[in-house]
Amino acid sequence: MSAKNFVAVAQSGGPTAAINASLLGVIRGALSEKAGGVLGAVNGITGVLNDNFIDLKETFASDEARHLLKTTPAAYLGSCRHKMPDINSGEGEYERIFEVFKKRGISAFLYIGGNDSMDTVHKLSAYARAGDIPMSFIGIPKTIDNDLAVTDHCPGYGSAAKYIGAIVRETARDCEVYNTKSVTVIEIMGRNAGWLTAAAALAREKEGGAPHLIYLPETSFSMDGFLSDIKSLTAQNIVVAVSEGIRDKNGAYICEDASSGLSDIFGHKYLSGAGKVLERAVHEELGYKARAIELNTPQRSAAHIASLTDINEAEEIGRAGVCAALSGETGKMMVFERTGDYAIEIRSALTEKIANAEKKVPPGYIRGNNDITPEFLKYARPLIQGETRTVFENGLPKHIFR
Amino acid sequence: MSAKNFVAVAQSGGPTAAINASLLGVIRGALSEKAGGVLGAVNGITGVLNDNFIDLKETFASDEARHLLKTTPAAYLGSCRHKMPDINSGEGEYERIFEVFKKRGISAFLYIGGNDSMDTVHKLSAYARAGDIPMSFIGIPKTIDNDLAVTDHCPGYGSAAKYIGAIVRETARDCEVYNTKSVTVIEIMGRNAGWLTAAAALAREKEGGAPHLIYLPETSFSMDGFLSDIKSLTAQNIVVAVSEGIRDKNGAYICEDASSGLSDIFGHKYLSGAGKVLERAVHEELGYKARAIELNTPQRSAAHIASLTDINEAEEIGRAGVCAALSGETGKMMVFERTGDYAIEIRSALTEKIANAEKKVPPGYIRGNNDITPEFLKYARPLIQGETRTVFENGLPKHIFR
Repeated sequence: MSAKNFVAVAQSGGPTAAINASLLGVIRGALSEKAGGVLGAVNGITGVLNDNFIDLKETFASDEARHLLKTTPAAYLGSCRHKMPDINSGEGEYERIFEVFKKRGISAFLYIGGNDSMDTVHKLSAYARAGDIPMSFIGIPKTIDNDLAVTDHCPGYGSAAKYIGAIVRETARDCEVYNTKSVTVIEIMGRNAGWLTAAAALAREKEGGAPHLIYLPETSFSMDGFLSDIKSLTAQNIVVAVSEGIRDKNGAYICEDASSGLSDIFGHKYLSGAGKVLERAVHEELGYKARAIELNTPQRSAAHIASLTDINEAEEIGRAGVCAALSGETGKMMVFERTGDYAIEIRSALTEKIANAEKKVPPGYIRGNNDITPEFLKYARPLIQGETRTVFENGLPKHIFR
Repeated sequence: MSAKNFVAVAQSGGPTAAINASLLGVIRGALSEKAGGVLGAVNGITGVLNDNFIDLKETFASDEARHLLKTTPAAYLGSCRHKMPDINSGEGEYERIFEVFKKRGISAFLYIGGNDSMDTVHKLSAYARAGDIPMSFIGIPKTIDNDLAVTDHCPGYGSAAKYIGAIVRETARDCEVYNTKSVTVIEIMGRNAGWLTAAAALAREKEGGAPHLIYLPETSFSMDGFLSDIKSLTAQNIVVAVSEGIRDKNGAYICEDASSGLSDIFGHKYLSGAGKVLERAVHEELGYKARAIELNTPQRSAAHIASLTDINEAEEIGRAGVCAALSGETGKMMVFERTGDYAIEIRSALTEKIANAEKKVPPGYIRGNNDITPEFLKYARPLIQGETRTVFENGLPKHIFR
């Protein structure tokens, strides 16, 4: 390890309400483990490439700043969508990164992100090993999608699930006011994994209550089946939760925008509109009043109704990551293991098992092709418990930002 | 007055987070004024027509039920979109309504609603006067749109404004994470009046901060002007707040759905999509990453972040309505008058000044055609102060419903 023994941390991928709590955990962990200092790279790994760091010990010296960080959504340090080249073909980039690490006296790098970020952790760690560079690389999981392998759940998911549950329940109240048949389709994020869409079920207040139908991307979707599901319900005001990524039996997306061919740097297609397609079908085929509501990015940024369990766990796993890194572990992601009903233990797992893998909702949590099972509720309910102490100033949540 | 001296109450029009607080105010007012009882008509005036009432004294006897009512969004009694016929042409309907009032011993009817509901209050009161029927009809204002005449503001607006402010601020955090040019267009409710869209400005944390541009329906919108506004901004991640009802200089809606010709029973056109139209224009004409977020119905139902000021005022104005009715006032709507900085007084105003009128954002609150003035912030900020004590059960807001 470098004599300076600095810890560096960065954030990557899409925002969540919990990613800054993990950053706080890293800061607290580094300071309590007596690291020489804790530096934040701005905009993920590109901040390392550009030698663009913030002294986090200084910035978050006060309790007030730390509490604000814990309750501010998205990524304080900024994010990036930078895909690291292959170790063998990207010499220059790796050299530059390790040059900066050396210059700054950085002996541990913590990367808070999703599976693309775990791929980066995996590559950096392999590069260091191959070159006998005494550095640790540890991933801190983060994704509202809850689709990372090995870990019981991902920081960020519980808060997104709580927001979705609250909004679906409030939407149920909203729909119920009129005494005329209506169908409200709530479109929820989650391209391939239905964890977020399934979370809509947390809003259900009684057997047969809203949401009445839940369509995950894990099962194939048929428009005829959907319309027949709607017709078979006796409820006057039907609420449907649907994943943005539902596909037919041939794997074709139900949403219309998939044909646009737009995709991000990792090759993910930009999706939207499954809700609108269903809204139109209900209106045109059944003649019912129909409305689509796309929950959109507030699912990942609505920190004002974050889950305290999620935010506290996010901080804990950040802190645990520093301990693992400073005790010499590398090429690992920290994971939650569920014990009892309900507690968690934090351990580490090899990133190679996690990077580029995708954990979908298992069949045991899915009922038929339009609902979830009680087992899913048992899994998800502990994750949304408790409320954070949002700081309100002038009537609105106060945030801390660069 | 009838010997039984019962107070009846009903809710009408679109839901808000505050309409049940006004219902609670009516219940409390009726009981403290020693009315014989307080009955809730189910689904607005149609509940009277169908003689469908709930005994509210009994249902809301406990403090717990009352607190839940105050913090549950939408309309506990259900709503309707029933337009009363003209007094001279709708004999049968009026006879039926007054027969029910007489049978039930109802001497005062409170109608919580928007301007369509005030039209009903106006007509019922005129019919009673013409027939020398000793009954009082009082309107309690309610609309997230804040577009009712005479009153300083409407119950429901403050809570919607607080939700919009919180989400816009959280969206700003979300947008800022990437170091690439982006434009996020947030589409906000308010067909003709821009009060809700203007509320996005409450989220602004510093001069020149998000939201960077605000387009109200009160000013005419030009796509060229919009694209040029975007180009002139130096901010990397631009946030735009736009009303669903923006129109060009000829009065044509910018959203595409207006051409569908769909309209509700009162002839209002169903709108959606202005945000999407702007998103596409930014992407296609300027080549920037663009995303539209339609805030949709959570604007009116997100009770989990309601404004305490709004909810308390909503209860007070409900209570004041009962006092006015039992002291013999009729054909009036209760209104807020702002005194000092900041207090309100409640008085009554003739419904004929209010029904079918629409209060738009005045020129003094609008800056150019893409922002609001500090005077608007001075007007709106007091309305979003304070947070209600939401009851959480199993991690989600608990509601009371029929």
